[in-house]
Amino acid sequence: MTKVAIQGIEGSFHAEAVSKFFPEREIELLMCDSFEKVTNQVGAGKADFGVLAIENSIAGSILPNYNLIDTGDFEIYDEVYLNIQMYLMALESESIIDIFEVHSHPVALLQCRDYLKRFPPQFKVIEGKDTASEAKRIRENNLKGVAAIAGKQVAEMYHLKILDSHIQDIKENQTRFVLFGMKGSNLNSKTTNKATIKFVLGSEVGSLSEALQVLADHKINLTKIQSLPIVGRPWKYAFFVDVIFKKPDDFFDAMDALQDKVKELKLVGTYTSNKENVPSKLTNVISNGE
Amino acid sequence: MTKVAIQGIEGSFHAEAVSKFFPEREIELLMCDSFEKVTNQVGAGKADFGVLAIENSIAGSILPNYNLIDTGDFEIYDEVYLNIQMYLMALESESIIDIFEVHSHPVALLQCRDYLKRFPPQFKVIEGKDTASEAKRIRENNLKGVAAIAGKQVAEMYHLKILDSHIQDIKENQTRFVLFGMKGSNLNSKTTNKATIKFVLGSEVGSLSEALQVLADHKINLTKIQSLPIVGRPWKYAFFVDVIFKKPDDFFDAMDALQDKVKELKLVGTYTSNKENVPSKLTNVISNGE
Repeated sequence: MTKVAIQGIEGSFHAEAVSKFFPEREIELLMCDSFEKVTNQVGAGKADFGVLAIENSIAGSILPNYNLIDTGDFEIYDEVYLNIQMYLMALESESIIDIFEVHSHPVALLQCRDYLKRFPPQFKVIEGKDTASEAKRIRENNLKGVAAIAGKQVAEMYHLKILDSHIQDIKENQTRFVLFGMKGSNLNSKTTNKATIKFVLGSEVGSLSEALQVLADHKINLTKIQSLPIVGRPWKYAFFVDVIFKKPDDFFDAMDALQDKVKELKLVGTYTSNKENVPSKLTNVISNGE
Repeated sequence: MTKVAIQGIEGSFHAEAVSKFFPEREIELLMCDSFEKVTNQVGAGKADFGVLAIENSIAGSILPNYNLIDTGDFEIYDEVYLNIQMYLMALESESIIDIFEVHSHPVALLQCRDYLKRFPPQFKVIEGKDTASEAKRIRENNLKGVAAIAGKQVAEMYHLKILDSHIQDIKENQTRFVLFGMKGSNLNSKTTNKATIKFVLGSEVGSLSEALQVLADHKINLTKIQSLPIVGRPWKYAFFVDVIFKKPDDFFDAMDALQDKVKELKLVGTYTSNKENVPSKLTNVISNGE
């Protein structure tokens, strides 16, 4: 069975992302309590793939996860997007006026900050490990007066009652997840239209605009750029860039040309822009291989 | 007395940053338990200034704090850099073999991850509010067997014994802090050599390289660039760029030229590159004003 490492447990947003990548396959989830452990599982060969949230439509890039993918020398194979809607949930017996404390992952709490301000001052907001684990704990320990904030699927999975819906402060809230694995096992590259690359530049004025001009000359459109520190070289940066293109050949030509303009160049992954959440084509690859 | 809002309490890294900005002044610290509350205090006029960590030499930009400064429409006045070294501390009576749990801010725990792995499996790592508060709590509640991870100054302030030093995984660990306030009160702009700007581009291929070329043409050197989401427009980005330059006039000329190339342009602040932690010149301004 294909093993996929995620942060969180069944019902978590990461588990939901896995079901978008592999909707028709039985998958063994390797549930980890940190993003670093997810990459460790893949690096050690214990998981075939890992899934990581890489950016959010409100908060932006999750830079530490870029770092984990880069330092582990993994390859990005695919992406999906989840619409993240937050729900307040508790035991069947409870109604909203019974609740005196709420537990969730710090990021989920942050996304519901304005909502949580409406509760009286003695109301406690407590940071937990992840969204689904807090919900599970309420069910297993039969915790009265306690609510969790999590996705709708969590309420179903742990038989909790939804007390309030869409409680995050910004209603439109999407997260992009990537599927990654060991470098070199990707068979997608001929049909891709998106890529993540990393490069390091010299310190000359204009070196970045020159590098980006190479991409523009090859009709490669930049969608996102991040400076990330180079570990051990304080205040020196590598650039991580997401690009989209029409023809894979244009992209590979651009990479060849870019090689001459930068000090280091790394292809982190080529994949298909996938806001429609088309299942990963790696499913076929895996099926054939088994 | 000048009021400065920070996240954390006395002894925290943010409090130390304040003492670098204003070493010879009596400052009233407005201690907040979140970065958002820091910006709220400044926005409401309850604090003259706020101090926020904006990037770290290992983890990179703290993107949510860029967002807070941008959405509050604040101006960056100055920067300082702290060398962040982590220490394990406990009550005088304790030695390292007595410790069965450690508390600290999640980011501090993250920075000491490899170190903490050396402890036996039953050893508990617990996320707390901030580094200094956890240390203070050990002292006030006389907690035996419990250690905090924090800066050296915290051990001195709360009379704790240092059990181990420089325990963060990457020894060279610096954080950049900015001093910000309401827009328009900065008198520094004639002597600056650094700036943070924000711009939004059209979706044409090459629009970013064109914008950056304008900077290069004016001898403006880009040191850092981040894409940040535009709230309410999923997967559309604004670019935040840090630049350094020799002549302020070059920079202001570049801004004029850039105005024609971008859809929106905002000057977040001009200030002086300050790895030497020269005190803020705003001290003089405040002295005169009082």
